[in-house]
Amino acid sequence: MDKNVSELVSQLRELVGKQRAYGQAAGVMYYDAATAAPRGGAADRGKTLAVLSEVSYELETGETTGNLLHALDAVKEQLDFVTRREVSEMLRSYERTKKIPKEEYIAYTVLINDADAVWHKAKEESDWASFEPYMEKIVEFNRKLACWLAPEKKPYDALLDEYERGLTMEKCDAFFAILKERLVPLIHQITEKGIQPDDSFIHLDYPIEQQRKLSDWLMNAIGIDREYCSIGETEHPFTNGFSKHDVRITTHYHLNDPLSSLFSVVHEGGHALYELHVSDELQDTTIGGGVSMGIHECQSRFFENIIGRSRGFIHNLLPELQTLFPEQMKGVTEELLYRVANVAKPSLIRTEADELTYALHIIIRYELEKQLIEGSLAVSELPTAWNERVKAYLGLNVPDDRHGVLQDSHWSGGSIGYFPSYALGSAYGAQLLTEMRKTMDFDAVVASGDLKPIRDWLTERVWSKGSLYDPQEVFEQAAGAAFDPTYYTDYLTRKYSELYQL
Amino acid sequence: MDKNVSELVSQLRELVGKQRAYGQAAGVMYYDAATAAPRGGAADRGKTLAVLSEVSYELETGETTGNLLHALDAVKEQLDFVTRREVSEMLRSYERTKKIPKEEYIAYTVLINDADAVWHKAKEESDWASFEPYMEKIVEFNRKLACWLAPEKKPYDALLDEYERGLTMEKCDAFFAILKERLVPLIHQITEKGIQPDDSFIHLDYPIEQQRKLSDWLMNAIGIDREYCSIGETEHPFTNGFSKHDVRITTHYHLNDPLSSLFSVVHEGGHALYELHVSDELQDTTIGGGVSMGIHECQSRFFENIIGRSRGFIHNLLPELQTLFPEQMKGVTEELLYRVANVAKPSLIRTEADELTYALHIIIRYELEKQLIEGSLAVSELPTAWNERVKAYLGLNVPDDRHGVLQDSHWSGGSIGYFPSYALGSAYGAQLLTEMRKTMDFDAVVASGDLKPIRDWLTERVWSKGSLYDPQEVFEQAAGAAFDPTYYTDYLTRKYSELYQL
Repeated sequence: MDKNVSELVSQLRELVGKQRAYGQAAGVMYYDAATAAPRGGAADRGKTLAVLSEVSYELETGETTGNLLHALDAVKEQLDFVTRREVSEMLRSYERTKKIPKEEYIAYTVLINDADAVWHKAKEESDWASFEPYMEKIVEFNRKLACWLAPEKKPYDALLDEYERGLTMEKCDAFFAILKERLVPLIHQITEKGIQPDDSFIHLDYPIEQQRKLSDWLMNAIGIDREYCSIGETEHPFTNGFSKHDVRITTHYHLNDPLSSLFSVVHEGGHALYELHVSDELQDTTIGGGVSMGIHECQSRFFENIIGRSRGFIHNLLPELQTLFPEQMKGVTEELLYRVANVAKPSLIRTEADELTYALHIIIRYELEKQLIEGSLAVSELPTAWNERVKAYLGLNVPDDRHGVLQDSHWSGGSIGYFPSYALGSAYGAQLLTEMRKTMDFDAVVASGDLKPIRDWLTERVWSKGSLYDPQEVFEQAAGAAFDPTYYTDYLTRKYSELYQL
Repeated sequence: MDKNVSELVSQLRELVGKQRAYGQAAGVMYYDAATAAPRGGAADRGKTLAVLSEVSYELETGETTGNLLHALDAVKEQLDFVTRREVSEMLRSYERTKKIPKEEYIAYTVLINDADAVWHKAKEESDWASFEPYMEKIVEFNRKLACWLAPEKKPYDALLDEYERGLTMEKCDAFFAILKERLVPLIHQITEKGIQPDDSFIHLDYPIEQQRKLSDWLMNAIGIDREYCSIGETEHPFTNGFSKHDVRITTHYHLNDPLSSLFSVVHEGGHALYELHVSDELQDTTIGGGVSMGIHECQSRFFENIIGRSRGFIHNLLPELQTLFPEQMKGVTEELLYRVANVAKPSLIRTEADELTYALHIIIRYELEKQLIEGSLAVSELPTAWNERVKAYLGLNVPDDRHGVLQDSHWSGGSIGYFPSYALGSAYGAQLLTEMRKTMDFDAVVASGDLKPIRDWLTERVWSKGSLYDPQEVFEQAAGAAFDPTYYTDYLTRKYSELYQL
């Protein structure tokens, strides 16, 4: 590396340091808003976020940044592998974000801050009308965003690509068609003939204070180092991370449904483990986090379902539950807990859905988003359309918008095109499981209570790589093959046929 | 106002908006660090704070800022009262902060971030050795700071002035001499002849979950609007606020000592009420917060002690305690609770000290700080010096540094010269009480459970003014007279003579 190149790299490091600082400041404010801030502070926070986002925009798209990145790109043969990837990813962001007018970029930051506050209240009060004008603006912005970013594409394709590079409606349609074809008959079979376990014990009172202790146990059980990961409480569980030394998960406790928080902690814990195990050499770079939402949801759904809802995990979980909740768990056998944790039954809330019906929740959102973005569905029609689809796919009546269109935090958070990655990630996980089983007695490892071999496998094949490769490359490197959704449908068919003796 | 002036004012508003944004971002990161962040994230957070503090320094001291403020100062006759004060305060900050070298300013921000993380662990483990090097650097910086800011003053005077404008060692010495002269004999009398109430009930188990509910009741009882004020949990209770729409208090729960959190919530609640009641016209300015630590501690200590430890407040508190803790409070009378809440007894922890011995804790810290800054005490000698003074003033042996020199978060937070404002604030409060009684049946108001008349009085005379006047002016406007510490010693003498029938 000649002297000039090394000078450029040190300018890059300084720029990245600044970008990361503004990213962390805004990220902490977001986390704080969801966990601790009083509700009335939203408007003032918006002013601060506007100031920070203007600087972030400038750092990402400014002339100095463009010149530096182009200069580095011109000498990329002299850069090490990590820096070369970092430069190419930053150039990509530079080109991308530059297409968004600065004023729109800042205004959207403020809008999302306000929308989030309004959504919290709207959800609490099941008051769609108060949220609707914000959703109007969010949809409008996303349609413009699609045009700015990729005018040559169909708008919703441009948005899908934001969350999972390379994902398109064509791919989604094919994927969801297979899921529908294979899973809907299975769900019908269970609804008609399946004998459901007696889950009355799970609706007793489970004091929150004890549920908090359970969260500690769960985080420990899946191998999260608490020195670098904390847990908070929010309306909607999420994970965010600022580096491998500072990751946060959140959960929401329900007095009469301990499984809700339990599986959300394991789910968010999967996200956290990914961020916590990115290679040290990627720290302080812009490519030191998980590569995409699809790969991220693969980790979270793998931990939540493939591990968390397995016989082996339940085997280790039961004694802990019995210690924390002796009265409530009296007489509950391993088999009963396993069956209750795996009840397949159409339900209203996505985050609490079982593995089998989960995909239907995603399909509902995917179809609605497509329509919203292509303009065939008005935002004002969204609650009705939501309820109709829930009736059609899940056979349920939605009692109120809190249990319907207002349930998720993604839209109020500005994310349209995110949901498909949940289903994709779930399917990725089933294929990785097959690959993992080739060299590991997976069930025995889970039953042993020490998940280190699984963490090591995922660290080597996925987690350590951060954003060094494109999502599809990461997946194929890990799976040793191209993506094939039948691993997922086979996994679900096998699991639920056994569970319901079909 | 001519066009040029109005253009200058709009530049001022933009500058202030940016300053406030960086202030809030750093403030939220500080709050987050104390409440939610995983411990291992401290070093990464330091990098972010360094980036933010560099911009803050620039915004406060840069040439553009200086030119703008001087231009506004030149036309100050044309400015409204609020803007004129704002400009003069900002000029003061500009002149002040410019004296600190930029690199030192940033390095200190990072040092304090690191020191806080180290102090948390050191306190937990009672490990002075790990904190000592940080304290060395903090003292060293503060000695330099004093020189930069006011080379003509004695160094500790320069630091006192940072927390209470106009405060000097001369004033402190005179004030503390009166306190010692009047209070020490009273404390001795109680120690020798006073009959202490049976406080065994207060050391039973008080579940944290119930104590949290008590905090909600307390915040409501003193009139805090929760829309704009939240409560968190930290090692050391504190309050911070970003505007009247976003104030946070924190507390620390102890299973076997509910009074600790109880009175800390009322104390921090007093701080919060001050910030929550600053006049609307001062919002979005740089003078929209409490004016000084002395005036701030006046509010917090007034609520904690003069209100919180009064018969009237105890009268309303008891039924709530009996509802939340029926077993633990069985048979506890109002008189017993009142006496237990007012036990005067030398103790190790300042924040839990009674009203009477509290001043001795402050005097200990004041004397040690003076010596540290004048150089007659080395940081390495601090624990021994601490323990000797506790023995001399309070007659107690300090069992470990956790209960001694490591107990407070002020030094690790970089504040030297802060402590005297606690005693000053307490004394201010007693004088305000006398003034308040002239037009209000104070005891009846407190006993009624509706503190609105007190809040209104304080809003009018203190809270609404924010930083529109210097601290001493604010106090004298409120008290209608110059400060006189004998109101405080009289108040304590009367209260404790009655309590212990001396």
